[in-house]
Amino acid sequence: MRNTMLAVVKPQAAPGIEIREVKRPTYGASDVLVKVKVASICGTDLHIYEWDRWAQKRIHPPLIPGHEFCGEVVEFGNEVTNVREGDFVSAEMHVACGKCLQCRTGEAHICQRVKIIGVDADGAFAEYVVIPESNIWRLDPAIPQEYASILDPLGNAVHAALAGEIAAKTVAITGCGPIGLFSIAVARALGAAQVFAIEVNEHRRRIAKQMKADFTLDPAKDDVTSLVMEQTGGLGVDVVLEMAGHPQAIRTAFDIVRRGGRISLLGLTSKPVSLNFSEDIIFKGITIQGINGRRMYQTWYQMTALLKNQKLDLHPVITDRIAIEDFSKGMDRLKTGESSKILVYPNGLVSSGSLRRDPVG
Amino acid sequence: MRNTMLAVVKPQAAPGIEIREVKRPTYGASDVLVKVKVASICGTDLHIYEWDRWAQKRIHPPLIPGHEFCGEVVEFGNEVTNVREGDFVSAEMHVACGKCLQCRTGEAHICQRVKIIGVDADGAFAEYVVIPESNIWRLDPAIPQEYASILDPLGNAVHAALAGEIAAKTVAITGCGPIGLFSIAVARALGAAQVFAIEVNEHRRRIAKQMKADFTLDPAKDDVTSLVMEQTGGLGVDVVLEMAGHPQAIRTAFDIVRRGGRISLLGLTSKPVSLNFSEDIIFKGITIQGINGRRMYQTWYQMTALLKNQKLDLHPVITDRIAIEDFSKGMDRLKTGESSKILVYPNGLVSSGSLRRDPVG
Amino acid sequence: MRNTMLAVVKPQAAPGIEIREVKRPTYGASDVLVKVKVASICGTDLHIYEWDRWAQKRIHPPLIPGHEFCGEVVEFGNEVTNVREGDFVSAEMHVACGKCLQCRTGEAHICQRVKIIGVDADGAFAEYVVIPESNIWRLDPAIPQEYASILDPLGNAVHAALAGEIAAKTVAITGCGPIGLFSIAVARALGAAQVFAIEVNEHRRRIAKQMKADFTLDPAKDDVTSLVMEQTGGLGVDVVLEMAGHPQAIRTAFDIVRRGGRISLLGLTSKPVSLNFSEDIIFKGITIQGINGRRMYQTWYQMTALLKNQKLDLHPVITDRIAIEDFSKGMDRLKTGESSKILVYPNGLVSSGSLRRDPVG
Amino acid sequence: MRNTMLAVVKPQAAPGIEIREVKRPTYGASDVLVKVKVASICGTDLHIYEWDRWAQKRIHPPLIPGHEFCGEVVEFGNEVTNVREGDFVSAEMHVACGKCLQCRTGEAHICQRVKIIGVDADGAFAEYVVIPESNIWRLDPAIPQEYASILDPLGNAVHAALAGEIAAKTVAITGCGPIGLFSIAVARALGAAQVFAIEVNEHRRRIAKQMKADFTLDPAKDDVTSLVMEQTGGLGVDVVLEMAGHPQAIRTAFDIVRRGGRISLLGLTSKPVSLNFSEDIIFKGITIQGINGRRMYQTWYQMTALLKNQKLDLHPVITDRIAIEDFSKGMDRLKTGESSKILVYPNGLVSSGSLRRDPVG
Repeated sequence: MRNTMLAVVKPQAAPGIEIREVKRPTYGASDVLVKVKVASICGTDLHIYEWDRWAQKRIHPPLIPGHEFCGEVVEFGNEVTNVREGDFVSAEMHVACGKCLQCRTGEAHICQRVKIIGVDADGAFAEYVVIPESNIWRLDPAIPQEYASILDPLGNAVHAALAGEIAAKTVAITGCGPIGLFSIAVARALGAAQVFAIEVNEHRRRIAKQMKADFTLDPAKDDVTSLVMEQTGGLGVDVVLEMAGHPQAIRTAFDIVRRGGRISLLGLTSKPVSLNFSEDIIFKGITIQGINGRRMYQTWYQMTALLKNQKLDLHPVITDRIAIEDFSKGMDRLKTGESSKILVYPNGLVSSGSLRRDPVG
Repeated sequence: MRNTMLAVVKPQAAPGIEIREVKRPTYGASDVLVKVKVASICGTDLHIYEWDRWAQKRIHPPLIPGHEFCGEVVEFGNEVTNVREGDFVSAEMHVACGKCLQCRTGEAHICQRVKIIGVDADGAFAEYVVIPESNIWRLDPAIPQEYASILDPLGNAVHAALAGEIAAKTVAITGCGPIGLFSIAVARALGAAQVFAIEVNEHRRRIAKQMKADFTLDPAKDDVTSLVMEQTGGLGVDVVLEMAGHPQAIRTAFDIVRRGGRISLLGLTSKPVSLNFSEDIIFKGITIQGINGRRMYQTWYQMTALLKNQKLDLHPVITDRIAIEDFSKGMDRLKTGESSKILVYPNGLVSSGSLRRDPVG
Repeated sequence: MRNTMLAVVKPQAAPGIEIREVKRPTYGASDVLVKVKVASICGTDLHIYEWDRWAQKRIHPPLIPGHEFCGEVVEFGNEVTNVREGDFVSAEMHVACGKCLQCRTGEAHICQRVKIIGVDADGAFAEYVVIPESNIWRLDPAIPQEYASILDPLGNAVHAALAGEIAAKTVAITGCGPIGLFSIAVARALGAAQVFAIEVNEHRRRIAKQMKADFTLDPAKDDVTSLVMEQTGGLGVDVVLEMAGHPQAIRTAFDIVRRGGRISLLGLTSKPVSLNFSEDIIFKGITIQGINGRRMYQTWYQMTALLKNQKLDLHPVITDRIAIEDFSKGMDRLKTGESSKILVYPNGLVSSGSLRRDPVG
Repeated sequence: MRNTMLAVVKPQAAPGIEIREVKRPTYGASDVLVKVKVASICGTDLHIYEWDRWAQKRIHPPLIPGHEFCGEVVEFGNEVTNVREGDFVSAEMHVACGKCLQCRTGEAHICQRVKIIGVDADGAFAEYVVIPESNIWRLDPAIPQEYASILDPLGNAVHAALAGEIAAKTVAITGCGPIGLFSIAVARALGAAQVFAIEVNEHRRRIAKQMKADFTLDPAKDDVTSLVMEQTGGLGVDVVLEMAGHPQAIRTAFDIVRRGGRISLLGLTSKPVSLNFSEDIIFKGITIQGINGRRMYQTWYQMTALLKNQKLDLHPVITDRIAIEDFSKGMDRLKTGESSKILVYPNGLVSSGSLRRDPVG
């Protein structure tokens, strides 16, 4: 193994990235060195690329971004006990402290002192990435590599869907970015009675249909509330998974949820949102949940059980595959709004043939 | 409408039944008279037919049995407000008192003073049946009549499956009578990761395979515990739905459930079962639930939402269709162990073509 | 019994009320006629009295208000089966339809077509009130009459407290009107570790201390967030019961709740409230619940079990006792902000000696 | 510090123990050395002492027993970050593997590979004990040392009580050994409506009364089922905490639990128990739970919050205090059935005055 590797680097506090050779990372006694097979691009990576206000506040360059990936174990420290060379792995990139009240009571996903690999430390847009053994997730070889690279956002969808009852429920998903699109497949696999996908972007709506949403609505043209009420016998939906983070989508969530329903909020928004607490929440007796990350490690067991047993067909969401050298092109592509999940291959582009296309719905 | 109707009658405290003309039933101010389209035979009906010890204790002849059916509303009392002539309906045949603690706290399925139509009062193996409005369940015409006639046992399966988490779980079903077979479809529809069907009867195992159980095991030949452990990485299953009511099946349930798993017990047994509480329950930290009837009316909303949206393919369970005049032949057929769900047509046999065969799994 | 009775009447669409003789109410076959022993005044009654915007929209005069009371059964219709003359009773004044999805799935407290006696129909500020049998709550004679008259707001407090975990939790109560004050006693009785009472009104804070809040804070003077953080080791509280309905109190609720905590909202506000969904809800992974009414009838079982076994000492909240003729004086008194719960005696004022003062904390 | 320490030692595979000087234990990089202030004797220690069948199978002498204690941190390894010299601590003595499904999904109390300090490794009946940092529980100095030494069994009681709803419920506790007695205080503190304590031993019943059980019943003389039914209006109790592990007590548990109630099983029994599943479990729709250990670390947060805020008065359970040299006398005393919790002082006997006697019920 050579001492350097190719990586996407945010070199300084300014827009843009560089692709360059950097030192291969060293690892500690309880760390695992993983050769990255496939990484995937998240909206967060675009924030880092464009150097927006959030990035300026959070990111300390130089940094290798990338927090969604799968790969193969190549080396590990001498305190590592549960991992072997050649293991096919992904990882939970939220590294929890393990010592706060939340960590010690089964809520490590909202750890008070979490660090995110790919945001607060060097990540997976590189030939190699270092992960603490505690966060390594060993994968069944039956799971396709392309799916293994997107477990982070798929886990967001599974976490949100299973944060309350979903079986036999009517479900609306507001916002069809990758997590929203995954949520369609997840809701269907878990027995949702009907799935409404609500999205302004035409390309995303087309994918939502491919994901087999029962209804795909365009809030710019359709009277979403009326249509949802009509299809639910005037009740509204049992569950809203809010994935847009846009004030108008949040407004819709409160309008279409039924009395006693739940709204699980995942989409981030920087703008304040105004509600009428009496009408929107109290009289309707609804429950609202903030959803963050993935439950450690219930969500990982759940999503890998679903994938291993072919309950999820996610391939329509994967729209682009690029070599690491083309990372900036990926950023441009993302900005067009025409792509959804873009996969990056730091160790050589693999043909799309690696994706099994026969999952059972 | 003529004043009499054809009915299956248990005329006296002895084995057997008669098919005969009886008076068409009268109804009260809050009752609904339903013309029975399809009824279906339950194991309970065989107990009544054979006049076993349970029947001798519980049944007061003369009685028209039958507690699984669908039909059409023809008349109703003057206090009925929510039902119209021609409505396609089924009914919850457990008539709860509405006044006990259980009824007043959302647990009417374990009402202290429940009466069962078809057991404690005249039931649905007749041209007409009388049901209190409170227990009528109006059905979407999209639901096939044959499925509408088996909501009672399907509801048992849905109640058991949803009595705890099932999404992404490994599930074993011990006993593949009709409720066990329905449970396979239900578990799959709700996102169970793997379904193990365990059953000694060859005919039932064949249907279990048609219901798409991932593994179908014969406890008379297979080493069930070893096979389940092998397939679950040595853990055991997350959930057991015990539908057999046989001591050996119950023993298996405790052997194959994982630490922290749940066993939902539905199969009735007249024999005492012996357990080692320390090893079987306490050290493993499991949860055991008694499952009775259907939740009123959550289970009804859940199962009809699944059926309306074509999430369940139940047709392999329906093995026989008979005219009401052939009821005793149905009893003989049931005793062979070769049939599963037998449908009875009190108002004329309808061809099997009425069953839509295109549900989505 | 004479044919008329003394009652508080809202005679027309304008501020004020009248005390006058009206016809004693008639009742239907499933209704119960109750002689009112003690009624109590709610903030809603003040809205009706002052004829504010809400009242103008909701109330159709003439109306007898009053929805908190206890009394004695004097007569009932011929379909009533579970009530006897002389029974000591209170009632759930939210009359649910019994037929909507919410009613049929254990959520009648958010019924789509609820009617409230004392708001939508004649209520309890009168010598007699008519209640459907389904809503009558029979009381153990061990429960003091004064407590029996305030089960409606006490039930709000119990419903809110038990809408999630409360045992061994730190709990903040924002707003110490009667429901907030009751919540202090309820939280303590259910094993809350610490109770913070937050209230601007000095009189209410004094009562909060009498209810044994561990900390009583004045948001006008105290730095509430800092003090709560200091007392909770920098975590924030596990649970906020928001009883004020004031935007500033709601803001405080979000500031002091810990990561993963819950906010149960009960205080109504007519003003929109603005939140930063990312910071306030999503990153913290909190749960927010709208709390409305009382669970039918779990809450009633819970609160009467607590009262019967003397787990709640509520007497500091009861500040005034008036004869029905003095109802307008009661309204004036309420407006001073110096009183909390005002009891009204339509059938003659009983001395305060009726209140047992020996409950066990 | 000298290199040796006084300890209770099980020297070989035979009944009895020795008190002798042994080498002070060494510790690893992530371990903490604690000077034991107070340890307490568990029934398990008696099994080890008497060398019964369980002990012969599980224990590998030489062993220092003792798994309930509190003490002061004196030294620690160089990877320890969260503990300081002089910290007042107790510890969770179940050392979970951290890597199995149960450990990774919030159920470490039923870890597949748990080791217990004091059973599988040297424990706390010694001047010093070594504990991994992960299992150290730092204590607020406000918690009395005597209470701090019994957190292990108190945690069993809290775990059992909070394994389901307990607020405003009727609760029966079968078996009043120390855990059963603690359960009385816990149930009361968490708002149980009524507590029935059921116990054959007269000494234990006397303590149960001191713990303020509402009813204390002797199954050898009282008709327990009739009395419980009478006091619960014929319903039976909502919750049974089974702490006896005796077949007769288990039988009583099933007889007195109400329809829809729960039985939480903690008492271990080596004898098989026979049930009629249909009548005992299914028709009643009850839930049965195996309770093992303490939830890591929810139970610890809960019980220390209750203790710190003086919600539990446990002093009647502490019947004896002995110097470590008198350990065998403690065993004899335990066998008389007259004592309950016996405290052992490895570093010098402290007067009982250290126990604060003013907790608020």
